[in-house]
Amino acid sequence: MDYEIFEAGDVVLQCQQTLRNAKLAYKTFGTLNSDKDNVIVYPTWYSGQHYENEWLLGEGRALDPNKYFIIIPNLLGNGLSSSPNNTPPPFDKARFPNVTFYDNVKLQHRLVTEKFGIKTIKLVTGWSMGAGQTYQWGALYPDMVELICPFLGSAKTSRHNIVFLEGVKAALTADDAWQNGWYEKPPTKGLRAMGRVYAGWGLSQAFYREQVDIEKMGYASLEDFLIGFWENLFFCRDANNLLTMLWTWQQGDISNNELYHGDFDKALSSIKSKAIVITGKHDLYFPPEDNIYEVKHMPNAELRQTDSIWGHFAGGPGLNQVDVDFIDDSLKTLLAR
Amino acid sequence: MDYEIFEAGDVVLQCQQTLRNAKLAYKTFGTLNSDKDNVIVYPTWYSGQHYENEWLLGEGRALDPNKYFIIIPNLLGNGLSSSPNNTPPPFDKARFPNVTFYDNVKLQHRLVTEKFGIKTIKLVTGWSMGAGQTYQWGALYPDMVELICPFLGSAKTSRHNIVFLEGVKAALTADDAWQNGWYEKPPTKGLRAMGRVYAGWGLSQAFYREQVDIEKMGYASLEDFLIGFWENLFFCRDANNLLTMLWTWQQGDISNNELYHGDFDKALSSIKSKAIVITGKHDLYFPPEDNIYEVKHMPNAELRQTDSIWGHFAGGPGLNQVDVDFIDDSLKTLLAR
Repeated sequence: MDYEIFEAGDVVLQCQQTLRNAKLAYKTFGTLNSDKDNVIVYPTWYSGQHYENEWLLGEGRALDPNKYFIIIPNLLGNGLSSSPNNTPPPFDKARFPNVTFYDNVKLQHRLVTEKFGIKTIKLVTGWSMGAGQTYQWGALYPDMVELICPFLGSAKTSRHNIVFLEGVKAALTADDAWQNGWYEKPPTKGLRAMGRVYAGWGLSQAFYREQVDIEKMGYASLEDFLIGFWENLFFCRDANNLLTMLWTWQQGDISNNELYHGDFDKALSSIKSKAIVITGKHDLYFPPEDNIYEVKHMPNAELRQTDSIWGHFAGGPGLNQVDVDFIDDSLKTLLAR
Repeated sequence: MDYEIFEAGDVVLQCQQTLRNAKLAYKTFGTLNSDKDNVIVYPTWYSGQHYENEWLLGEGRALDPNKYFIIIPNLLGNGLSSSPNNTPPPFDKARFPNVTFYDNVKLQHRLVTEKFGIKTIKLVTGWSMGAGQTYQWGALYPDMVELICPFLGSAKTSRHNIVFLEGVKAALTADDAWQNGWYEKPPTKGLRAMGRVYAGWGLSQAFYREQVDIEKMGYASLEDFLIGFWENLFFCRDANNLLTMLWTWQQGDISNNELYHGDFDKALSSIKSKAIVITGKHDLYFPPEDNIYEVKHMPNAELRQTDSIWGHFAGGPGLNQVDVDFIDDSLKTLLAR
């Protein structure tokens, strides 16, 4: 086991259910300095686990473990933190409660403060759902977080994004083997279908037009890519876990809590942290328009656009060096402010 | 029955199977004049039947039955022309042969020439897969077709479009009730899932952002729209029919035949007809880049772009008057040339 568990006890969630013996899995890199002011929090993305965030870390990079104490907390539902597939009955499987970004970030805040005694965070950053958690950090703890860099994500899941995810969910749950979550054997047909639905969304029209899958990634054909990359991305993950995280994503809204009562503009304007928001010109479910709106309402934010044809996957998980460098450069710029 | 059947006998298809007693269902509007030079052919779109093309027809419109003899041929597989669900055994259901745009247009050409003795066609036009057939008409019969106006479609189905359709197919076929096409009861769960996958693709991010579904279409909520519009679009159609047409769409390529042997540029450059190609800025599976490429290689073509946030559905089926007028105006301009 290459990670730690923060035992959070019984946690009452926004949905008014209790996550009993809540576990937050995390991994740290580097050393917390004596002033405890070299902290970076870097949450995970949809279905990703901490080791799938590590591509952005390294000596000489912005996220340099020689300089910073980097905490990667695993999203609830991702199979390492409390999830449908690792929670004992009766709250297991289809009975795992709904969790929000708010619930996740509150728990991460407890890890940071209770476990490590940290009072200020230099930077929160993340891709996709990791970006969602990043915005949530900024809106919940504006005095604690100095910098944020959400990349290819949003502070509030758009209606179109919700619809895209409804398609993903419908494909997964069309498989009778899913059995409303009470499967003994995994619904592999549905999981594979989900990967195929995702395939058109995750990348861009131009990515496929230029045959990056074949020319740069080395797949033999489109079908080879659909199976080898997209079906592979999901079919070995747990269906209930995926549906839990999908629900979290669909509900994403930094203002849906007792601080902002659904006032999205107010929540955005409360993010005092200096921010670089990275948007993707070819991201099909987090299009630039939504990030432009956010940055207009955030007092200290700058928008940077990547034109990468890797679409949403320009933000991760580190498949294309040019994209990695783009994010790394932005993080370095931000950390230098 | 508000349509006619052209009995084409046994037709050998590109796939080297024989479509026995092939039936082409069609409907005509207006009167063929004595010179037989007032003919418009207007093929159908994915899953659509002839009556779902009628929104573009009318007195005072470009497609005016008082002036033109308008033929709407139904796509093979759409349930009215020969299809998996109306072909007798042993070539029914999962054994219905693969048909291409080429097969469709060859059959339509026989209808036009054998049944009506027509030698020249004023205009071929169509939306989406109807556009695919339109390009195919132009490339197969360059001396016969005076004008073409394909809207929100392509002459060759792009790889990204193929991937989008793989997602649609995967959702439909994830339902065990599909039984590899040998269902007795329809796989309604899969058909509904297919509608949900389609929902994100058919319209645009901006459509959902501006809540057109609620504000203009009158749905009570997003979920109301997903069920009432998207699930409704497919769940009462036949699954094998949908898969037959999907295959036709995925194989779309005007050059894949004995005339052009896969030389796409040559096929495009052979389209002598004066053309207006209508492209959609927000069309997520027929993006402008592909149409721009086409028009560059077509000798007599002009590109017109609609910025409608209705995405692909800016091309049909007549849900938004501004979009209808845009197409109608373009057709009038073209017919005046």
